[in-house]
Amino acid sequence: MPNNKQILLDSRPQGEASVSNFRLVASETPALGDGQVLVKHLFLSLDPYMRGRMNDAKSYAQPQPLGQVMQGGTVGEVVESRNANFQAGDKVVGMGGWQEYSVVDPQQGGMLRKVDTTHIPISHYLGAVGMPGVTAWYGLVKIIDAKPGNTVVVSAASGAVGSAFGALAKSRGLRAVGIAGGPEKCGYVKDELGFDACVDYKQYKDAGSLSQALKEACPDGIDGYFENVGGMVMDAVLMRMNAFGRIALCGMIAGYDGKPAPLSYPQLMLTNRLKLEGFIVSEHMDVWPQALQELGMLVGSGKFRPRESVAVGLEAAPEAFLGMLKGKNFGKQVVKLG
Amino acid sequence: MPNNKQILLDSRPQGEASVSNFRLVASETPALGDGQVLVKHLFLSLDPYMRGRMNDAKSYAQPQPLGQVMQGGTVGEVVESRNANFQAGDKVVGMGGWQEYSVVDPQQGGMLRKVDTTHIPISHYLGAVGMPGVTAWYGLVKIIDAKPGNTVVVSAASGAVGSAFGALAKSRGLRAVGIAGGPEKCGYVKDELGFDACVDYKQYKDAGSLSQALKEACPDGIDGYFENVGGMVMDAVLMRMNAFGRIALCGMIAGYDGKPAPLSYPQLMLTNRLKLEGFIVSEHMDVWPQALQELGMLVGSGKFRPRESVAVGLEAAPEAFLGMLKGKNFGKQVVKLG
Repeated sequence: MPNNKQILLDSRPQGEASVSNFRLVASETPALGDGQVLVKHLFLSLDPYMRGRMNDAKSYAQPQPLGQVMQGGTVGEVVESRNANFQAGDKVVGMGGWQEYSVVDPQQGGMLRKVDTTHIPISHYLGAVGMPGVTAWYGLVKIIDAKPGNTVVVSAASGAVGSAFGALAKSRGLRAVGIAGGPEKCGYVKDELGFDACVDYKQYKDAGSLSQALKEACPDGIDGYFENVGGMVMDAVLMRMNAFGRIALCGMIAGYDGKPAPLSYPQLMLTNRLKLEGFIVSEHMDVWPQALQELGMLVGSGKFRPRESVAVGLEAAPEAFLGMLKGKNFGKQVVKLG
Repeated sequence: MPNNKQILLDSRPQGEASVSNFRLVASETPALGDGQVLVKHLFLSLDPYMRGRMNDAKSYAQPQPLGQVMQGGTVGEVVESRNANFQAGDKVVGMGGWQEYSVVDPQQGGMLRKVDTTHIPISHYLGAVGMPGVTAWYGLVKIIDAKPGNTVVVSAASGAVGSAFGALAKSRGLRAVGIAGGPEKCGYVKDELGFDACVDYKQYKDAGSLSQALKEACPDGIDGYFENVGGMVMDAVLMRMNAFGRIALCGMIAGYDGKPAPLSYPQLMLTNRLKLEGFIVSEHMDVWPQALQELGMLVGSGKFRPRESVAVGLEAAPEAFLGMLKGKNFGKQVVKLG
């Protein structure tokens, strides 16, 4: 029975989340029952949605239970199996949570899927070829439903979702414009991810001036917008949306810490006859196979080379998570274990 | 050539609109050309969308041109015709504008449609069996797409659009809840229009307390919302929307005078995975015949008895229009001429 370190949610944040909301504990992994699989985690996924689940309030999903292991996506290797479909050495993606090992029972609803790591580095199954990639795909294909010649914009463009959005948009021949924070991220978005333009929102103090910059980056206006951020950025984009534009509302990280993130010009949704839709990709499992196939091709062929921020060791997870909420990560934030 | 009084847009409002933005002029109606029809207006329609068009800013439609007759819906009687499809005495609905007579050329794109006034009073073709009625129909049927058992809510419930929305919702067996200003309007919405409940927003000082009142009126939450108002009312409704709810965004009268009407809790559109769509009914002409048939049946059968606020005489139009923007009307606002 290997020793297992775990990070629990110890208390719910009052306002901004902090390291004191988490607690590190250790225990032995239990003996496997029939049908169960023991997975040694190689990488943990850190994702903005986790912040919402730390609150007790009504959110997308059930709140993360207090005193239990922080839930989240993981990739790893099977080290022991009492399930005929898995054997030691299999590389797998699952929802193992913030811990070094997990015991999964696939017949009892535990999510575990074997993945091919010959063409795709395993950590990308937490990012570009995983939940964030499918999230970008769903917003672009199912909500924005972009037409040839359209201009599409994504906020947090250097992140896991934003970079996948750009790759998918460019592979469809669309004009892709990113919004990101700082010259380094914007340079990466343009030069490495291949977006047509990137606007550094940190250079603008209000929605009006940011909107002017967007006008230059989007000379034909904006037909589709993928929102990860909310607040001032969303106001600025609304000012540039074309009539009948579509907005995929995926995240509003600006308001996650309980800070108000009001929308100053909601009437633009009316005057521009916009369609806006909030969504969570885990509620649309039917699209995953199609989306993952396309994303796997883009990454496997080298057309899309996603960037990662890698924290090392389970103990580093809380700091890395809190940093990501402040935009300190650069690309998909993961934690490398072992 | 009858003498024709007209009201022109004389200047664009800076902030709140006022009577000084309008100017009354008189002229003779011109002699008819081939194919033209002279219509004597019996009623003018006053509608909130006109306020948006008084601004020069980008809005739904082209701005109302300065120095020209205020555009708007009219019903009237043909007094002279050089068009084979119309003859003196025909009752017609059109877009004659704020004047006593209009010359229409149906072959040159002039809108003119004969209407049956045996079962339906002619003024209702400006309201329940006209543009406002079709607006309500489009929002309920095409955007909210309500399912059996759903609760649907409409703001400005005693108005032309709101009352039609309620009648259409009740005829489908839905739970219909109105939001209106003052006990008299709320009593009318409940007792005469047959809504299941009505909340008087004027009794609540903030979105939180209004939301509490909505909770009582909507014990199963809100599945569909038809928005005419914006601002605090919209925030309060967002707090009560069920997951996967739909919002038809038709008007945001709270912001029409250039006052800010921010949305404080836009993140609720994400956490509740809402769909929101702004629309203008004149861009969906394909649904008009079906919608008008249903609305005509409801009014003709007496199941829906729409209420009107009637101002008398062309000169009364500006005051009546400004009053309507402040909610002083009760039901569809029209101006009776002649």
